[in-house]
Amino acid sequence: MKIAIAQLNYHIGNFEGNLKKMLEAVKEARSKNADIVVFGELSTCGYPPRDFLEFDDFISKSEECVARLAEASNDIAIVVGSPTKNPVIEGKDLYNSAIFLYDGKIQQMQHKALLPTYDIFDEYRYFEPANEFRVVEFKGKKIALTVCEDIWNVGNENPLYVTCPLDELQNQNPDFVINLSASPFSYHHATNRIHVLQANVDKYGLPMFYVNHSGAQTEVIFDGGSLVISPDGKIHDELPYFQECVRVYELDEVEKGGIERLQPKEKIALIHDAIVTGIKDYFGKLGFKKAILGLSGGIDSAVTAALAAEALGAENVLAVLMPSKFSSDHSVSDAEQLAKNYGMPYKIIPIKKNYDAFMDALTPHFEGRPFNVTEENLQARSRGVILMGLSNKFGHILLNTSNKSEMAVGYGTLYGDMCGGLSVIGDVYKTDVFALARYINRNGELIPENTITKPPSAELRPNQKDSDSLPDYDILDEVLYQYIEKTQGPKEIIEQGFDEKLVARVLRLVNINEFKRYQTAPVLRVSSKAFGMGRRMPIVGKYLS
Amino acid sequence: MKIAIAQLNYHIGNFEGNLKKMLEAVKEARSKNADIVVFGELSTCGYPPRDFLEFDDFISKSEECVARLAEASNDIAIVVGSPTKNPVIEGKDLYNSAIFLYDGKIQQMQHKALLPTYDIFDEYRYFEPANEFRVVEFKGKKIALTVCEDIWNVGNENPLYVTCPLDELQNQNPDFVINLSASPFSYHHATNRIHVLQANVDKYGLPMFYVNHSGAQTEVIFDGGSLVISPDGKIHDELPYFQECVRVYELDEVEKGGIERLQPKEKIALIHDAIVTGIKDYFGKLGFKKAILGLSGGIDSAVTAALAAEALGAENVLAVLMPSKFSSDHSVSDAEQLAKNYGMPYKIIPIKKNYDAFMDALTPHFEGRPFNVTEENLQARSRGVILMGLSNKFGHILLNTSNKSEMAVGYGTLYGDMCGGLSVIGDVYKTDVFALARYINRNGELIPENTITKPPSAELRPNQKDSDSLPDYDILDEVLYQYIEKTQGPKEIIEQGFDEKLVARVLRLVNINEFKRYQTAPVLRVSSKAFGMGRRMPIVGKYLS
Repeated sequence: MKIAIAQLNYHIGNFEGNLKKMLEAVKEARSKNADIVVFGELSTCGYPPRDFLEFDDFISKSEECVARLAEASNDIAIVVGSPTKNPVIEGKDLYNSAIFLYDGKIQQMQHKALLPTYDIFDEYRYFEPANEFRVVEFKGKKIALTVCEDIWNVGNENPLYVTCPLDELQNQNPDFVINLSASPFSYHHATNRIHVLQANVDKYGLPMFYVNHSGAQTEVIFDGGSLVISPDGKIHDELPYFQECVRVYELDEVEKGGIERLQPKEKIALIHDAIVTGIKDYFGKLGFKKAILGLSGGIDSAVTAALAAEALGAENVLAVLMPSKFSSDHSVSDAEQLAKNYGMPYKIIPIKKNYDAFMDALTPHFEGRPFNVTEENLQARSRGVILMGLSNKFGHILLNTSNKSEMAVGYGTLYGDMCGGLSVIGDVYKTDVFALARYINRNGELIPENTITKPPSAELRPNQKDSDSLPDYDILDEVLYQYIEKTQGPKEIIEQGFDEKLVARVLRLVNINEFKRYQTAPVLRVSSKAFGMGRRMPIVGKYLS
Repeated sequence: MKIAIAQLNYHIGNFEGNLKKMLEAVKEARSKNADIVVFGELSTCGYPPRDFLEFDDFISKSEECVARLAEASNDIAIVVGSPTKNPVIEGKDLYNSAIFLYDGKIQQMQHKALLPTYDIFDEYRYFEPANEFRVVEFKGKKIALTVCEDIWNVGNENPLYVTCPLDELQNQNPDFVINLSASPFSYHHATNRIHVLQANVDKYGLPMFYVNHSGAQTEVIFDGGSLVISPDGKIHDELPYFQECVRVYELDEVEKGGIERLQPKEKIALIHDAIVTGIKDYFGKLGFKKAILGLSGGIDSAVTAALAAEALGAENVLAVLMPSKFSSDHSVSDAEQLAKNYGMPYKIIPIKKNYDAFMDALTPHFEGRPFNVTEENLQARSRGVILMGLSNKFGHILLNTSNKSEMAVGYGTLYGDMCGGLSVIGDVYKTDVFALARYINRNGELIPENTITKPPSAELRPNQKDSDSLPDYDILDEVLYQYIEKTQGPKEIIEQGFDEKLVARVLRLVNINEFKRYQTAPVLRVSSKAFGMGRRMPIVGKYLS
């Protein structure tokens, strides 16, 4: 028996587009004599469809897409993911289903039982969990059909669920497991995924065909990396990262085992590729081609520009240099050098007159109060308005250049440097931004060395340095990581050896700046806990603040 | 037996503050010879605590709060809501519990079974549902203890859950029901709540003591309106809206029935009171006193200013008039009149020079392209920067003045008039903004009549009217309501008699402007479906767009 894995880049709500891709993959699988072709979870509508699922029309369009695929299933079985209607009035109205199509019609459906409802996932918001499990019989084989999380309640120290769907299916003596997933990227996820699949193979002794999405949907990035695992636990194949791909496997060979194919999983390289994918799909799926961003000569905007140039082509990235009286000499020259290294169009628009006009308007109302963060913000906001003016006039999307460290502690100006339609490196701590810069320069200097080595500064007052108001990034980032990714409280972090006052100060900064993050662009998610839809915090909360 | 209902305004994560309030209420209940005092759902930590629940330290502080309350329970039973730890390793780590304290210690806990996971609710993100139900025996009575949603799976045409906790508890012959709730306001909710409680009384024939929160937590507003219902279905008492209140009831009298006390539920008056509460608590809980806003002479900013003046005192609301060359004569005079009617401080800061400075900087780069929305946005953004400058210098919170109709269709400038820390009327359609203005003027003209009667205009180009680019608000708002609140698709809306092209255009505008709403302030929620945390839409989705 031959099984085809179709790892595709879907587009949420683009039913025609998704169907077309799937029909092409069916054709390709058929031409390679596959008996079955498997798509990802909710492949008809894309993942995550979010509250579009509340519209009957959206569900009907998904059903129509399944019906059209069924028509193509006369000589090849097709396994597709789709929302389906729950016929029982009690409970949620939908199921998240794997649908087995053959002979022109739906042969069987297996609904998802374990509904991830944590981090960026909201599945119990929409779906009723399955309570029936039945293997699919096809050409003399029994197939255990599962959807994503259904195989994730194995091998965890603190299991999230009280049930385990494969325990039920195992009683029916399946020959192999198919899993339809939409499992988003984070820089350790490919490794975790392999561990979980191997824990299933250890427990059940069955070959597994795991099919993931590739491509990005706003902030959520799918890395692909679909897997075929042999009963001996060997990774028979791991599909490419961040690419669409259709591959066909002979079941006998998978069962034999002994072969292991893996890809490198270097953190910074993965983050780099994920972000490039994220930018490309954000623009592509919205129908935009060109980006604009402010280039300060600092490392954050340099790395953002470099990633955008890789994703969109340097000619499609307009860099704007907006020096002020506090800008150092090197800020313009470093920024210019970067633009030249890439062959990126750039403009220089000084903000002095805009800043002065705001000061003229406001000084009579400032009651003689001294220069403070207000005036710093006026500079950042003058830049924001200029960038948005160009963005509006030419239809470019403004890229936000804030990193995760500064977003965490509120070191940025709302409606100023926090402007932008997409936050490119908002899930990358400053220390990793440096590593990204080094990675980008791995084959030669693209980001000027001076941009990487000079001390970070917002250049909003004379001789300002980030280190004037923030702890060293090495320490800051580690405390932030413990608090944000690891949800460790102050006591646990201090026990790790960090200074008590520093920890209290950093955690307080994170919490009191929730209001700023609430109003920033979607952040390309590359870690296990990004700001945005996966981290939901009260604004008026009085906790560690 | 005497039962005290304590309807309090908690503060998320402010354990000391919440405990102090509860201990005072215990004292008051004791002084009135109550046998039991009942608080709201998750009253130790406030509702919704959101991802703070992922921190062990946060849960420990809740437990500490319960322990301190237990110390006060020697002579009076206390029923408190708190997150508690799930001792079983499988499943979610927490329960959402009602805890019965007496004689100095925890006597019993009843966990919540039905976990709302829709709209603004994310409870299955954190909590394991209860599967055990046991009445509390106290002074010869059996009490069915329930938490919020546990009594909501009754009387619905399309029940969300397959189980019904009171069915289980009813087998143990309880004498009455206590329900700890955190059930947020929307303008029809008080009526719905009564229907659901009466459906329970119809089914089980038991007296019910329903305890809600009052006050606002960022966007979520609790109206109180706690209820005592007799077995004959009569509303024995409905506690005041938007106020803290402790009241004591004699069980015998509640059982007798025959008494009905209700409050008026007029939509616009409720919205008005809800928003005033929302503003007051947003400022109070964040420790701010003063607001700033742009006053254009139009109805949205006028209504926002009026509501802010009621919430904070007119002397704490700074109005800024920022005329441009496109402003009409009446825009300044109407705005001034409003400020004078309230005795509100105001400043006039023309934006001409700021706008000109941006045009000077940008025109050389605009390649001769004609005046369009870019220049309109430059005006709105100049105003945004001025307002934020004053906000930063004096520590005032900027109020956003966008209404729901314009937020829906993207008729607003990101980083311009969409600036602000709190969206005051972002859940109020334009037609209801007019009704609010009339309501505010119910005892005499506060909002100038001309502000209410002149045709709405953004005044960003010569002789501009909203009706140049948008359908009439009467029609627009109805289509938006069907799409947003009622989740009707294009087909269903057209079937209601709306023009096909208009419907397609409006729905498209809503969907393609998701990116703008993503970056706006939290919106005070007064309807059953507000923009923000309760409506989660993909940005790159290609659906009706």
